[in-house]
Amino acid sequence: MTTTPVMQRCLPRRQFLTRCAVCMSGSFVPSILFAHQQPPVSASPGAPDVIGDLVAANRILAQEGVVDAYGHVSARLTPATNRFLLSRSVAPALVTAADVMEYDLDGNAVSPAGRSSYLERFIHSEIYKARSDVNAIVHCHTPSIIPFGASTVPLRPMYHMSSFIAEGVPVFEIRDAGGMTDLLVRDGRLGRALAQVLADKPAALMRGHGAVVVGQTIPTVVGRSIYLDVNARLQAEAIALGGRVTYLDSEEARRWDAANGTYDRAWELWKRKAIPK
Amino acid sequence: MTTTPVMQRCLPRRQFLTRCAVCMSGSFVPSILFAHQQPPVSASPGAPDVIGDLVAANRILAQEGVVDAYGHVSARLTPATNRFLLSRSVAPALVTAADVMEYDLDGNAVSPAGRSSYLERFIHSEIYKARSDVNAIVHCHTPSIIPFGASTVPLRPMYHMSSFIAEGVPVFEIRDAGGMTDLLVRDGRLGRALAQVLADKPAALMRGHGAVVVGQTIPTVVGRSIYLDVNARLQAEAIALGGRVTYLDSEEARRWDAANGTYDRAWELWKRKAIPK
Amino acid sequence: MTTTPVMQRCLPRRQFLTRCAVCMSGSFVPSILFAHQQPPVSASPGAPDVIGDLVAANRILAQEGVVDAYGHVSARLTPATNRFLLSRSVAPALVTAADVMEYDLDGNAVSPAGRSSYLERFIHSEIYKARSDVNAIVHCHTPSIIPFGASTVPLRPMYHMSSFIAEGVPVFEIRDAGGMTDLLVRDGRLGRALAQVLADKPAALMRGHGAVVVGQTIPTVVGRSIYLDVNARLQAEAIALGGRVTYLDSEEARRWDAANGTYDRAWELWKRKAIPK
Amino acid sequence: MTTTPVMQRCLPRRQFLTRCAVCMSGSFVPSILFAHQQPPVSASPGAPDVIGDLVAANRILAQEGVVDAYGHVSARLTPATNRFLLSRSVAPALVTAADVMEYDLDGNAVSPAGRSSYLERFIHSEIYKARSDVNAIVHCHTPSIIPFGASTVPLRPMYHMSSFIAEGVPVFEIRDAGGMTDLLVRDGRLGRALAQVLADKPAALMRGHGAVVVGQTIPTVVGRSIYLDVNARLQAEAIALGGRVTYLDSEEARRWDAANGTYDRAWELWKRKAIPK
Repeated sequence: MTTTPVMQRCLPRRQFLTRCAVCMSGSFVPSILFAHQQPPVSASPGAPDVIGDLVAANRILAQEGVVDAYGHVSARLTPATNRFLLSRSVAPALVTAADVMEYDLDGNAVSPAGRSSYLERFIHSEIYKARSDVNAIVHCHTPSIIPFGASTVPLRPMYHMSSFIAEGVPVFEIRDAGGMTDLLVRDGRLGRALAQVLADKPAALMRGHGAVVVGQTIPTVVGRSIYLDVNARLQAEAIALGGRVTYLDSEEARRWDAANGTYDRAWELWKRKAIPK
Repeated sequence: MTTTPVMQRCLPRRQFLTRCAVCMSGSFVPSILFAHQQPPVSASPGAPDVIGDLVAANRILAQEGVVDAYGHVSARLTPATNRFLLSRSVAPALVTAADVMEYDLDGNAVSPAGRSSYLERFIHSEIYKARSDVNAIVHCHTPSIIPFGASTVPLRPMYHMSSFIAEGVPVFEIRDAGGMTDLLVRDGRLGRALAQVLADKPAALMRGHGAVVVGQTIPTVVGRSIYLDVNARLQAEAIALGGRVTYLDSEEARRWDAANGTYDRAWELWKRKAIPK
Repeated sequence: MTTTPVMQRCLPRRQFLTRCAVCMSGSFVPSILFAHQQPPVSASPGAPDVIGDLVAANRILAQEGVVDAYGHVSARLTPATNRFLLSRSVAPALVTAADVMEYDLDGNAVSPAGRSSYLERFIHSEIYKARSDVNAIVHCHTPSIIPFGASTVPLRPMYHMSSFIAEGVPVFEIRDAGGMTDLLVRDGRLGRALAQVLADKPAALMRGHGAVVVGQTIPTVVGRSIYLDVNARLQAEAIALGGRVTYLDSEEARRWDAANGTYDRAWELWKRKAIPK
Repeated sequence: MTTTPVMQRCLPRRQFLTRCAVCMSGSFVPSILFAHQQPPVSASPGAPDVIGDLVAANRILAQEGVVDAYGHVSARLTPATNRFLLSRSVAPALVTAADVMEYDLDGNAVSPAGRSSYLERFIHSEIYKARSDVNAIVHCHTPSIIPFGASTVPLRPMYHMSSFIAEGVPVFEIRDAGGMTDLLVRDGRLGRALAQVLADKPAALMRGHGAVVVGQTIPTVVGRSIYLDVNARLQAEAIALGGRVTYLDSEEARRWDAANGTYDRAWELWKRKAIPK
């Protein structure tokens, strides 16, 4: 399945920036950009990049098959504001800068302006509360990871590109926290339970649902989400071969992550594929 | 394999509506639109949307790989008329509004105007007769579901997106109803036998053939068809891992379906991919 | 992987016909079109369609993943001439009318005009000699069928669309005919050995190499090649589920083939995808 | 997933050559092209083709899924110069002629001009040193081969297209050479250890990392990389069927390679797909 038709309708980079400027004079814009009728704290030169990168992350995750019509990606604003950015409730492939909303760490939209929120925004708010090292979060239902979330077979690192999972990928069983639910993380209590299972790890699976992946930057969390998917498929294939499998050693993984775990080279390619100039 | 080239020839939304207007003055139009030389009962403001949505459903199912050159999707007109809409016999990716025909609940075309009918229209007519809660039906040969239709291993719900199958997916063995056949549901008798196996469920597999999926609306039946496909692939992969698999609990499935089972957010994305503006 | 870029460079239908006309006045044209400086027997109104359909078949097989840069498809001219048409040695996705050459039933090109021939044209020549019911032949290395050609597990019919294999798909072991070879059917002797293994069946696998598929028409052999691929994947998945599998009964297959085995509806779709207007 | 959007931005062939000419008067050009302010030894009529083919190889490997944002391909310049060409550190899909740099056989860039080098260029330099028969090298992380690099199940040749692996594909265990590392071949010592494991073979797997493939020409190494990928998938599927598998005999493989192992027909197709005219 290809998302080409949608992507071909993406705005060229230049137009994209122009429209952002237009958005700023309209009503459906992130509150950060014109709150208090004066340049807010977060409207620093770096702030627009967060929104641009978050839009790119949405498009990339859709194009690479990590998300379909569902799933979301957020980014922490600044530590000082205790805020994070997340799109209104819409398919990631369709997200534009005007869809990006600002939330506080209890999952309340700061200036909703009539826009609806993702039901599961508490995944983001509670993890940002618990993990000061985390600045970007992906929630997804990537097909390859669902079997591992439902199986007693744990995910293990197949190669360097997915070395970040070497310390293990915990599985969140929502029945433990909420009994019989509709499987969604609909409130702060379930969000906190998920954050506790995630603990200090870079990713957790959610049984019968999907996964959450975290990172220090947007490119890192996007790269981790993409290679979590690849790793799941590689491991399934390695198991099916029937031989003995050698996984990465924790020390190998630690060394690779320390030296190379930012996925910068890939980020440039993914952006060019997802947002053609 | 991508259907992009075909899709790129799809009419832009605006042109599409224009052409529909043109169709109405021609001869190959659904009888509903100008029967009795006066606005028919079903030509209410909502009626044109049924045809538009049915065309979109055909394109979406083709684009998402649920159907290839074969398979079909129908929609019930209004309960009062005891009629349903279904394309003439053509590949779903090529269906336009002018191909949509009106049928009675015995599978007779109301105004064929020289257009040929799908041989298996009785799948639709007999299920509409038996299931007053059903307003849309998909018949498909999606590759991923064929193995489950032929195997003794039953489909089970892997995650929330496919929770609608939690009550089980019955398998229609046409030998039980018709002995040795060409496997097609060519008449009302075989259609009734299929409807009986389907009973009150949202989907049934057909051994050596494909599946039938039903729903209250067109977006729902399209979403169910797409995630039935995903679920089949996920379950096959989970089984291949060799561990123990935890499927959704019936209560989890019931709660998710009740709160979220309309696939509305996805419908918007699928339409934009299948029918570029 | 998508072949869209190549396909998008395909000639629109109208241009395509124009260029064919141009070809006819040039030097690289099938001999049939202007042999003897007068309308040949085979230049009947139907003759140009064979070439057009053969070009379409090449493009379709490439687009649907049946062939990659290798593999070929031929069509018998008329029984009277004992000739068949086959492209010069080029990747199927790139074949145009000017590439189509005429061969006799010993695999000799009638008017090569400097064009090189596929090494394995003897697959075609010897099967046309042995099978008067066959008018079109595909030779391919489709990935999904290679495992079945190398395995002791035989291909069996999973659903109606591939019912033509119900009588079994013989496997050609070239070692039986030629001992240690480079696996290619490079001469009439190996071609005859393959034709003997094929016998009266619609397809044969070739161990360590690929398959040959035959039919009464070009659309039929293309449809069979496409669904042979699908069937191989479906059967592999059904086996991996671990349950008992019910295959089509011979009588079910015979009935479906007799009533529906021409793939006409699919042919129209495949042509529109492979050769955009 | 498709790389169409990126590929559609590729320069048409004619423009591409024009831009190369432009590059030559700029600062970011391979040193070979204007070293010593006079036509260098390697600026023979054949030299520009090496760069053009190397750019094409990068695009082809990306398009065919052999590499994603990572991996690289190099070509030996002339035996006399003891130099090889390799892109600066960038995703293969984005490589242009201006990115191609010249290296000596210790992995030093001759005229970096501010451009950064791939960390693992020592894979190339040490193999060129050890193997005078090798003129082109691919390093990749193709998903299908990772399971075989980690498993005790060895790769074996499934069909003629991958017959080059009949003598076996050794597995490089970097722990044997370097103990706990970040898995990357970061220096000449690790490069030499890899070259020793490769020995006289056309390919070696790298446990937890990827593979290296070598050949006498750029089209050959590209073709081998593509069919190494296909072979891995075919073998995994053949094993999953559960029967006994017949692999190619060494003598069959030797004969096919000797007569056909250049992938010339495929190279033309791959170039047209990767670099649309």
